[in-house]
Amino acid sequence: MDRETFRLFGHKCIDWIADYWEEIEKYPVRSQVKPGDVKKKLPSTPPDAGESMESIFQDFQDIILPGITHWQHPGWFAYFPSNASPPSVLAEVLTAGLGAQCMVWQTSPAATELEEVVMDWLRGMIGLPEEWAGVIQDTASTATLCALLTAREKATSYNSNQRGLIKPLAVYASEEAHSSVEKGVKIAGYGREALRYIPTDETFALIPEELERALEHDTRAGVRPACVIATSGTTSSTACDPLEPIGRICNSYGVWLHVDAAFAGTAALLPEKRHLLQGAEYADSFVFNPHKWMLTNFDCSAYFVKDPSLLTRTFEIHPEYLKTGLDAQVKNFRDWGIQLGRRFRALKLWFVIRSYGLEGIRNMVREHLRLAGIFQKLIRSDSRFEILAPVNLTVICFRMKQEGMTEEALERFNADLLEQVNSSGKAFLTHTKLRGRYCMRLAIGQANTTEDNIRTVWDLIQKACTHM
Amino acid sequence: MDRETFRLFGHKCIDWIADYWEEIEKYPVRSQVKPGDVKKKLPSTPPDAGESMESIFQDFQDIILPGITHWQHPGWFAYFPSNASPPSVLAEVLTAGLGAQCMVWQTSPAATELEEVVMDWLRGMIGLPEEWAGVIQDTASTATLCALLTAREKATSYNSNQRGLIKPLAVYASEEAHSSVEKGVKIAGYGREALRYIPTDETFALIPEELERALEHDTRAGVRPACVIATSGTTSSTACDPLEPIGRICNSYGVWLHVDAAFAGTAALLPEKRHLLQGAEYADSFVFNPHKWMLTNFDCSAYFVKDPSLLTRTFEIHPEYLKTGLDAQVKNFRDWGIQLGRRFRALKLWFVIRSYGLEGIRNMVREHLRLAGIFQKLIRSDSRFEILAPVNLTVICFRMKQEGMTEEALERFNADLLEQVNSSGKAFLTHTKLRGRYCMRLAIGQANTTEDNIRTVWDLIQKACTHM
Repeated sequence: MDRETFRLFGHKCIDWIADYWEEIEKYPVRSQVKPGDVKKKLPSTPPDAGESMESIFQDFQDIILPGITHWQHPGWFAYFPSNASPPSVLAEVLTAGLGAQCMVWQTSPAATELEEVVMDWLRGMIGLPEEWAGVIQDTASTATLCALLTAREKATSYNSNQRGLIKPLAVYASEEAHSSVEKGVKIAGYGREALRYIPTDETFALIPEELERALEHDTRAGVRPACVIATSGTTSSTACDPLEPIGRICNSYGVWLHVDAAFAGTAALLPEKRHLLQGAEYADSFVFNPHKWMLTNFDCSAYFVKDPSLLTRTFEIHPEYLKTGLDAQVKNFRDWGIQLGRRFRALKLWFVIRSYGLEGIRNMVREHLRLAGIFQKLIRSDSRFEILAPVNLTVICFRMKQEGMTEEALERFNADLLEQVNSSGKAFLTHTKLRGRYCMRLAIGQANTTEDNIRTVWDLIQKACTHM
Repeated sequence: MDRETFRLFGHKCIDWIADYWEEIEKYPVRSQVKPGDVKKKLPSTPPDAGESMESIFQDFQDIILPGITHWQHPGWFAYFPSNASPPSVLAEVLTAGLGAQCMVWQTSPAATELEEVVMDWLRGMIGLPEEWAGVIQDTASTATLCALLTAREKATSYNSNQRGLIKPLAVYASEEAHSSVEKGVKIAGYGREALRYIPTDETFALIPEELERALEHDTRAGVRPACVIATSGTTSSTACDPLEPIGRICNSYGVWLHVDAAFAGTAALLPEKRHLLQGAEYADSFVFNPHKWMLTNFDCSAYFVKDPSLLTRTFEIHPEYLKTGLDAQVKNFRDWGIQLGRRFRALKLWFVIRSYGLEGIRNMVREHLRLAGIFQKLIRSDSRFEILAPVNLTVICFRMKQEGMTEEALERFNADLLEQVNSSGKAFLTHTKLRGRYCMRLAIGQANTTEDNIRTVWDLIQKACTHM
């Protein structure tokens, strides 16, 4: 492709994105294709000769777009948001153009040093202690795996890396912790049986006394507690484990504390929500995802550690072909995580934070909290509905009650209701279960979601009810 | 940022990239900043109020750019290339604009189905068996870790996932294998001591008889061989382990065979180089990186498995909040790897393969092979130099000989030579050691590298020699 064609289609892509965002509400939030619909429109073998960008771009619009679920739609209430923003996309464009692989300082010093600086900014923005250091990971799954590995090594005096997993070890998390904890426990070789799910209280937050009991029990039985994972903002209901008592317990048992605040971390930008992270200073590692609620394109996960030397000691390997004359003077982020290769992710964080400023981001978060308040009021105004968990942030777990219905029937009823709302194309919500009780789950965090979108989804729910 | 500002700066970024590529030879390949140079130009705290895109974009050019090492420079001969291309960048732009997180089918059916299709294309393009299935990983480090984990589970009847790593297990790779093998062995809980480095022959390829001896020895000793990692195209010298005999041995011992062809896999697009992968059909898993030598922006690693059910059995977890009504009918790629969250990476592969066509990509690879031939001839024409390893593809390991010098002095001499070449800004090479012998290492694969660039780097080396 010659430069002029690149310019032409580059401008077209930019304009297409601007139009797409402008008109995004004309698309159904959740793609309406059926399994196989996209695949059957694609040839089973690649072309021998190159094709024109016209036809590729046309196929993108005709074949791919109908199969896209529109995460940037203001009617996005599913899972957690992954809210992007114009400055973040501009940075992604430049990152793609530079095409730099930033595994070590030498392979792009600016990528490493900008990452240090924006991670220091972020650390201060959410109030973590000044001595901590940060590194960008792709996702919270990876960050949590890094924590589990560092904890494993610390608990076994770096012998697991050398001699293979040394049993018996144990890992602790609340029964509401994210599935990446179980996945990480398996990957790191602890095994599922080493994972203790600690009971939660009526707010779905981990009960510190139960954690202490489990630690005590294991210690007496000769099992070495390696890692506790506390969640600030669980996936199902954004329950917040009480970090301060958990932290004190972990410190007294000498066990690694990792805090998963993947979604909720952004809320700590607000002084009035900072209390959610109270006690985080007791932790050894902490993760939150700017790619969820902080206007930064997926993927971008911010991982902070109290003592980076424990992280690098877990991961560093020094093959000859990666040595540089400056290794003693610089950070080589390849030793701060799983992968060797690294994208230049700091650029988009820098663009986002500078373009919005602290105040701009805070305003967005406050607006989402206000919208969550409105939606809660709407539900509470209708006695047919119930809210199943405290609304700490912007996730609301609710369902329609039906007298005399079994749990199973209630699940079917509400699942049907949810499907009707999602089929409308105007909103997309997902579900969860809390203590076995099925509920719809509305998560607010899309950058452009307005009060209108909130009222629309409520109307859709009301309308679906009357049809059932 | 309003839409018009986005359009304006979007066009500016596209034009900036087009100009950057046009004028890239005016930049020094390897950034010339010193440690701390970039950092000291950046404020230590984030702004409270938003800043204009003018000033951010200006700072990108003034502060960040001098700290970039230019991977897309035609004088790039370091490490392995990571050659991007205009159609790949266009796809990255659209991916960023869509901002979709493609963890499961439902969160963007087109992303999943396009990934299935392009991975089928790729599989056919390099001649892997038709029954195999593919998934995109971020990097080969991650793909190799996936292989080590699947192998671990298979060898222990899925009990390691459940009960924690079950010893004693062993993993085998040549002494020239990539450092990600050792890293993966540690992460997966095998431990460094479980890794057997198998000796290599005079071409730096694994000696199958030595592998067999090690397997036999371990088996007799009650150690369970879990995984063999063969490399097609080692990092130091692109040595190619003989896959066919290795494959037969692995099959007879019932041990998982993973093939790491991260760089060399692209060469299998050429019928005349297909022999490098002869025997790959015996393997259980295979990885190669389109982000190295196939015009696709970093990151994009193609991971293929013979039996995907073993992969998903290793990774799948079904939390309620991720269940969809279609899970039995579709692929959910979150269960095919480490991370839950996934970028829409298939789009860039689709753009690249369609835009270049098979022939276009093959032409590029053939041209690089021709350039490697020219560089070899230049070295061989000068008796002061020696080539230290067979040139299987486009990586040449060479050094200047100095009669009577110790290895240590030779290393210092050639390292100085290398530093002089790199300091010129016109080329960037890295080094390695082969059997303890230091050498310079020239890797050809940048999309726009021409014969001129090859002659330039040779001239630089000659000039540096005369100054020493």
